[in-house]
Amino acid sequence: MICILLAFCLHFSCIFLAFFFSLLSGIAFKSPTGNRHPVNHKTQSFYLFSTLKLRMFKIGFVKLGNIATSTAIDLALDEIAERTDIEFKIVSFGPKMTKKEGEASAELKAWGPQLVVISSPNAATAGPTTAREIFKGIPTIVISDGPTKKEARDALAQEGFGYIILPVDPLIGAKREFLDPAEMALFNSDALKVLAACGGIRLVQEELDRAMTAIAAGEAKLPTILATPEKCAERMNFQNPYARAKAIGALYMAQTVATIDAAACFRLKELEQIALAAAAGHEVMRAAGRLADESRELEKAGDSVSRKPHARTGELMKKTKLLEKPEKI
Amino acid sequence: MICILLAFCLHFSCIFLAFFFSLLSGIAFKSPTGNRHPVNHKTQSFYLFSTLKLRMFKIGFVKLGNIATSTAIDLALDEIAERTDIEFKIVSFGPKMTKKEGEASAELKAWGPQLVVISSPNAATAGPTTAREIFKGIPTIVISDGPTKKEARDALAQEGFGYIILPVDPLIGAKREFLDPAEMALFNSDALKVLAACGGIRLVQEELDRAMTAIAAGEAKLPTILATPEKCAERMNFQNPYARAKAIGALYMAQTVATIDAAACFRLKELEQIALAAAAGHEVMRAAGRLADESRELEKAGDSVSRKPHARTGELMKKTKLLEKPEKI
Amino acid sequence: MICILLAFCLHFSCIFLAFFFSLLSGIAFKSPTGNRHPVNHKTQSFYLFSTLKLRMFKIGFVKLGNIATSTAIDLALDEIAERTDIEFKIVSFGPKMTKKEGEASAELKAWGPQLVVISSPNAATAGPTTAREIFKGIPTIVISDGPTKKEARDALAQEGFGYIILPVDPLIGAKREFLDPAEMALFNSDALKVLAACGGIRLVQEELDRAMTAIAAGEAKLPTILATPEKCAERMNFQNPYARAKAIGALYMAQTVATIDAAACFRLKELEQIALAAAAGHEVMRAAGRLADESRELEKAGDSVSRKPHARTGELMKKTKLLEKPEKI
Amino acid sequence: MICILLAFCLHFSCIFLAFFFSLLSGIAFKSPTGNRHPVNHKTQSFYLFSTLKLRMFKIGFVKLGNIATSTAIDLALDEIAERTDIEFKIVSFGPKMTKKEGEASAELKAWGPQLVVISSPNAATAGPTTAREIFKGIPTIVISDGPTKKEARDALAQEGFGYIILPVDPLIGAKREFLDPAEMALFNSDALKVLAACGGIRLVQEELDRAMTAIAAGEAKLPTILATPEKCAERMNFQNPYARAKAIGALYMAQTVATIDAAACFRLKELEQIALAAAAGHEVMRAAGRLADESRELEKAGDSVSRKPHARTGELMKKTKLLEKPEKI
Amino acid sequence: MICILLAFCLHFSCIFLAFFFSLLSGIAFKSPTGNRHPVNHKTQSFYLFSTLKLRMFKIGFVKLGNIATSTAIDLALDEIAERTDIEFKIVSFGPKMTKKEGEASAELKAWGPQLVVISSPNAATAGPTTAREIFKGIPTIVISDGPTKKEARDALAQEGFGYIILPVDPLIGAKREFLDPAEMALFNSDALKVLAACGGIRLVQEELDRAMTAIAAGEAKLPTILATPEKCAERMNFQNPYARAKAIGALYMAQTVATIDAAACFRLKELEQIALAAAAGHEVMRAAGRLADESRELEKAGDSVSRKPHARTGELMKKTKLLEKPEKI
Amino acid sequence: MICILLAFCLHFSCIFLAFFFSLLSGIAFKSPTGNRHPVNHKTQSFYLFSTLKLRMFKIGFVKLGNIATSTAIDLALDEIAERTDIEFKIVSFGPKMTKKEGEASAELKAWGPQLVVISSPNAATAGPTTAREIFKGIPTIVISDGPTKKEARDALAQEGFGYIILPVDPLIGAKREFLDPAEMALFNSDALKVLAACGGIRLVQEELDRAMTAIAAGEAKLPTILATPEKCAERMNFQNPYARAKAIGALYMAQTVATIDAAACFRLKELEQIALAAAAGHEVMRAAGRLADESRELEKAGDSVSRKPHARTGELMKKTKLLEKPEKI
Repeated sequence: MICILLAFCLHFSCIFLAFFFSLLSGIAFKSPTGNRHPVNHKTQSFYLFSTLKLRMFKIGFVKLGNIATSTAIDLALDEIAERTDIEFKIVSFGPKMTKKEGEASAELKAWGPQLVVISSPNAATAGPTTAREIFKGIPTIVISDGPTKKEARDALAQEGFGYIILPVDPLIGAKREFLDPAEMALFNSDALKVLAACGGIRLVQEELDRAMTAIAAGEAKLPTILATPEKCAERMNFQNPYARAKAIGALYMAQTVATIDAAACFRLKELEQIALAAAAGHEVMRAAGRLADESRELEKAGDSVSRKPHARTGELMKKTKLLEKPEKI
Repeated sequence: MICILLAFCLHFSCIFLAFFFSLLSGIAFKSPTGNRHPVNHKTQSFYLFSTLKLRMFKIGFVKLGNIATSTAIDLALDEIAERTDIEFKIVSFGPKMTKKEGEASAELKAWGPQLVVISSPNAATAGPTTAREIFKGIPTIVISDGPTKKEARDALAQEGFGYIILPVDPLIGAKREFLDPAEMALFNSDALKVLAACGGIRLVQEELDRAMTAIAAGEAKLPTILATPEKCAERMNFQNPYARAKAIGALYMAQTVATIDAAACFRLKELEQIALAAAAGHEVMRAAGRLADESRELEKAGDSVSRKPHARTGELMKKTKLLEKPEKI
Repeated sequence: MICILLAFCLHFSCIFLAFFFSLLSGIAFKSPTGNRHPVNHKTQSFYLFSTLKLRMFKIGFVKLGNIATSTAIDLALDEIAERTDIEFKIVSFGPKMTKKEGEASAELKAWGPQLVVISSPNAATAGPTTAREIFKGIPTIVISDGPTKKEARDALAQEGFGYIILPVDPLIGAKREFLDPAEMALFNSDALKVLAACGGIRLVQEELDRAMTAIAAGEAKLPTILATPEKCAERMNFQNPYARAKAIGALYMAQTVATIDAAACFRLKELEQIALAAAAGHEVMRAAGRLADESRELEKAGDSVSRKPHARTGELMKKTKLLEKPEKI
Repeated sequence: MICILLAFCLHFSCIFLAFFFSLLSGIAFKSPTGNRHPVNHKTQSFYLFSTLKLRMFKIGFVKLGNIATSTAIDLALDEIAERTDIEFKIVSFGPKMTKKEGEASAELKAWGPQLVVISSPNAATAGPTTAREIFKGIPTIVISDGPTKKEARDALAQEGFGYIILPVDPLIGAKREFLDPAEMALFNSDALKVLAACGGIRLVQEELDRAMTAIAAGEAKLPTILATPEKCAERMNFQNPYARAKAIGALYMAQTVATIDAAACFRLKELEQIALAAAAGHEVMRAAGRLADESRELEKAGDSVSRKPHARTGELMKKTKLLEKPEKI
Repeated sequence: MICILLAFCLHFSCIFLAFFFSLLSGIAFKSPTGNRHPVNHKTQSFYLFSTLKLRMFKIGFVKLGNIATSTAIDLALDEIAERTDIEFKIVSFGPKMTKKEGEASAELKAWGPQLVVISSPNAATAGPTTAREIFKGIPTIVISDGPTKKEARDALAQEGFGYIILPVDPLIGAKREFLDPAEMALFNSDALKVLAACGGIRLVQEELDRAMTAIAAGEAKLPTILATPEKCAERMNFQNPYARAKAIGALYMAQTVATIDAAACFRLKELEQIALAAAAGHEVMRAAGRLADESRELEKAGDSVSRKPHARTGELMKKTKLLEKPEKI
Repeated sequence: MICILLAFCLHFSCIFLAFFFSLLSGIAFKSPTGNRHPVNHKTQSFYLFSTLKLRMFKIGFVKLGNIATSTAIDLALDEIAERTDIEFKIVSFGPKMTKKEGEASAELKAWGPQLVVISSPNAATAGPTTAREIFKGIPTIVISDGPTKKEARDALAQEGFGYIILPVDPLIGAKREFLDPAEMALFNSDALKVLAACGGIRLVQEELDRAMTAIAAGEAKLPTILATPEKCAERMNFQNPYARAKAIGALYMAQTVATIDAAACFRLKELEQIALAAAAGHEVMRAAGRLADESRELEKAGDSVSRKPHARTGELMKKTKLLEKPEKI
């Protein structure tokens, strides 16, 4: 009986302490006007909590609507669900991404996330824009396929948001004349294949890991990246340059998909044209998936697939040969 | 100190209010003991609200951990985000699916969902089990790759849960020796391709649509389905029997993946064996993805791909030829 | 000064002589029955000389530099070399396409072509521009991958030129760091596959056939076409809409190749970047070739490949089933 | 009579003028240091004009009818159109290759080519034979798919012609019952893919480069090669022996195509048989194209694709790794 | 000397005894009703015993050495092992096929086969020739890849043998420098795929079925067929003419394999040349296997795969749609 | 009675004579150095007769019914038919495998095999069981796809039989509703491809070679192996671990085929279900064949295909690079 009581006490004390420190740190980092001392928590460590392991990092996701990256973004931070340094909370309203959902995402605030990730198609639309307003003040990274224009991106940065704009995560052929649930999932499958094999997913994951580490270390350095084909492919550490070229090619094809599907979604008016354009876009996506697959197969041929799993402690590890052990970077 | 106190007060008030309203609405629609007239809304209509459009149907999702179905499940109910009869709320904790996350999913209750879907790997584990306990009383459907045994499934049904068990949505090779974020996403991509092309996604989507319609009509008829390869393939309305056979084959291969990956995850102990088994599992998944793709290409060859998009009103439509208009079923 | 004058004199004398002899030979060989009135022969007929067979139509080609269309353009007008109504003369300087070659193409004039086709990369460059000036006055059609801008195309038309601009016949990755003769030929092979399977070649061929018929009938109606993916694909009379969508997709991919290769050729400066970009461009071209092949295979699956061979008399015939006879259209 | 005389005069004056100006420009641009002794220029050098840069080498092509090699032969000598040591002139009559076109090719003589290349199907037919007679005395290389018999080839050599007979550049299925412009271009695409990936194009290009160098050096050593699969494949410097075996296999398949298509073109009489045989021939060509592609992909897997681009000065360079610089051989 | 004499005596005694017992057993088992008049039972029936079911037909196989057809030949007559009208006996000596094995095949005689099938590579070699001599007098069909020459085949027929010569069942690359057990089996797999998908197996099976029926009916009509690509493909009742063309193409490729492998086996002397040629031959075989597979996939696309299973009674049935019932022909 | 006695006498005399002559020949040809003591010859040597070359090893095969391994098993021991140390005799009854055929296999005994191999589907059925009883006492190895259960296998071993159970050599879809001779051969082709490329054939061949050596050396050590995917793949000495993983995956897929086909053969009752299941099983087999092919292609990419040909003397040799010589192990 007593030990249970004791456990309860400890439990509450812990929570209290956690709360206390979070308050402290909250004051320390987030209050733009207060006197902070960045010097104190500027650490060398890349990974979370190598010096401070009081509590887990709280990362919150607001997922609005459908982009392929969204379906893997949180899983990519803890692919075997063994990290002990990180806590997730995802808020989503499924396919919906209007202003209403943007507002409803406010509920994530109560959880006290240290980093918020807002992923959605076109971040310039009402829903994501509303969401961003809500999380102003909290370190927030926008992940989307647009806006791609420099001015629009700079505006995001000036408002204090980090961003990773992925034009390689293309618009789906979202017309009732063509798209049904199965076709939607197939498109996401192909898009995800390209993003995963060619570096898009890794770029996002590494940047989120890096941002978390920075925040934990007291420096809110958020990424501001336009994820071009070249930048994505660079992350995959291809050993075979043809594998890299294929990956770059597949990512360019994904961008082409966006162009074709945009016509289907916004410009064309007749059933036949819409269906053909959307189908053409999805065929290109599928072809891109195969080129991405070919890229990876080339690396398999040389037993040089780069893998970067997370250690239990959250650090990134790496391995290249299939039968070798992952090692801390 | 005071502001913290205030925050607590506000918090509780909110919860209270939410509860209050949900009670109200509960009385109106759901209270089994209250004076409702099932006769009135027992309609012939399969789809939601064809006669009654008072408000949108509220479907809540608790997504615990990583199965491929989870990445498409909500999007599949409103693939172009134009339905006006349905509202979504998703609660997730990313890859995490322990008891703690199971408990945390309770927060969905406040929203007053009319149907809760709990998707996760192996529903027999602690996290999903805890979540189920929380939602007892609310119509709840379990979506998972297990348990597959009849007794375990019957137990679920006896507790009042609906379920769709998909052994065709297989366990990933979740070992640090093999899996990294990119490989995880690739596996999900392949699994999703099989599920989407071969009927798994459609089965889930149709059952959820059906359950929502039933609930809206006052009859909480929940699905209790073991989604075998044959049952999934049946849903795709294949015109070409070889396409159907390929789909069935691909789904069986997905089940084989589960066997291989289970060895990698739970039974094997040495790096080499683990890495080889996990890699073999993922190769079979990839081969299954290609067979699924072949299946769909065969249907394309006959211009007989079955598509079932949602109308704006939520009804399912269908079309077979690419250049024909979708029609209400 | 004097020598230039002399050259001019010589030039004109040559042309005069050539003309004189061609007249003579025309009388001698081709009009066995004697006095006819070329002025009258404005006929309704689409094909050449169905009513009037005075002599063979003389079509001259100036091929400057390397585009894939050039390698098939003349052969496409008489694919089994049995037409009795048409005569070809091609002038080319191989890969070279500077002003000098543009000027040298003048020699074709002496032959007295009734229609001149100038094919080259970017028709806005010096060589093709010079060539056009030379053939002003003679019905001339420009075939190139650019200029694509409307104003530039309109300018061509205003100068009296017909044009078929094919952005789907993309720039090659013409950098010594990547391209060698084998790679050049492989790229042309892939580009030609896309153009041939997806309608580009047929569009050009039909337009040239049509222009010749018009000229022979006394109306110099020249095509002014921007050959978009959609317009090309339309020409292939696909029976299977997925085959058509794949063709459109492949053609869009070809356009993407142009973008990538342009970076390699004109923008990038370092060996690694150039080689990667050029290789990526060629990988996309290769992937487009495969998608084009898939498109055709789908039509084979339905035994619905559209074929349009030339009759001996030059008329276009058509057949759809492999084992049926071609028939006059 | 007089006008002919006049024409001759004019002609010679033209040539004189051309020569005069070329001399001038030679002096002006290329020999900054002045007095050199052309007499000495029998050099060991493999490449053109390393010691003597008075003028560019003039290579003339007579292209009669359709073989795949023809579509790449001149481009292969200057793949990025930057060589400063070579001048091209191509004379062609499109698909036509009768005696008449053979005779008409005489006009190339006026240009004063130092080497003439006559490419055509079956060099034993009337057109090519006539053309050869015209160019007797000028170094001339015959490029064709036949004759393959030793005696016939020896006869060519005894008449002083060089030759490269490529049985691997097969006869097309040239029957109206099957072939249309699109199918023709597809066949050429596949044939070119095999020739390019497996060494046929390189063999031709290297031999032409070598012959030009020899002629420039005063020794008219012309190639006399029956380009068997083995000899072609040898030129590609395959590092991976399976890539080489696949290339050899693909080239043998190309030869098989010739056999099948010959039946379709010359032996079979009924529509069904002709169409089936021609289609079978083209299917084998397509399969050969894929095997050729596989061969190259194997080399990509080892980053060992041999590339031999031309330097601006015309020398052959080589590189093996994609990201390395080409170097002079 | 004496021991040889003795051996001979023993040998003959053995044969005599065997013959004696076989006679006895023949009487005992097979003709329960006694005196039959073979002359009478000339029936119209194509299939065995539709009117007369007195006993099972005895078909004996002598399999000498390795051709792909051998591995399926007997199974093809009773693919699900349910025929009640036929008895098999196979005699083989594995890979061996010298004169010795030819002689040893005599033991089959004792069984009293009504039809003997001798399958082997090149039937003109010593082993098969010896075997044929042994079975003279008994209806015997030779199945081999050679001899293909008309005279040699006519000679076979004149000696009373039936034959099916399959140049499409090609020589393996039987050199220790290349072939090992795995490679041998892979080659057989590919060859069998071509033979099975393109009609070779069906041709053999139908002819054997027909011959058995004829023999049972008292007419020893044996096949004398040179199984060309066209003849094989005809048997598959392709509905899609492109599928048929692909099958013909694949069979021609198989013949090409024989040419390449013959060089490896008999003409080339150096390790490198042998290994490359044998590997090239096997690559072409593999490519042929894929083309054969493509052919069948085209038929699957139209749900028009022709199937001809045996009824329990031995009659051939047929079906075309996958989900339809087989029916007697 | 007397004649039987006589037959026996004759039989024994024959054997004696054969032995006598083989002794003579052994002395004459193979033992140049003379007197050796067969009694002592328990040697360490793995291969046959390295010390003792008195006579050839006699291996007998009883092949009952259809498994893919059977079609290659004897050929695999002497792939180019040049071994001088081994003699084969195969007894088979084609597809039939009932008790009757089991009994009839007794005739092999007369030949005096030193090792008997009984290959068949499911060794627990009547035919194979009967055959085993017959050969009790003679070293006998059972090769089959079952029984897989440990007890059943142990029972075999306890009766003194060796066994290699290959669950990776799966049941065919043996229903008249689906299987015809062509489909049967195609299935065998795919199954053989998997077995050959992934190690099944090599495992069997090495074990038979090993057993023969052991028996020749006086130790009848027979294999007792359940040939799991992992054990098979191990034999192929893959250098590339992804090739190995693919091989393992393909073999697991083959096992899946067995499950699917078992349903088709034994459990399902309706035409449609049977045809679909059998077709699905065969599609998975085909997909497994392609994955096996991919595995081998990966090894080709590294020029690391392991080959283990037999020397003329029967010893296993090995080579890895295509252009290197095989060497004794």
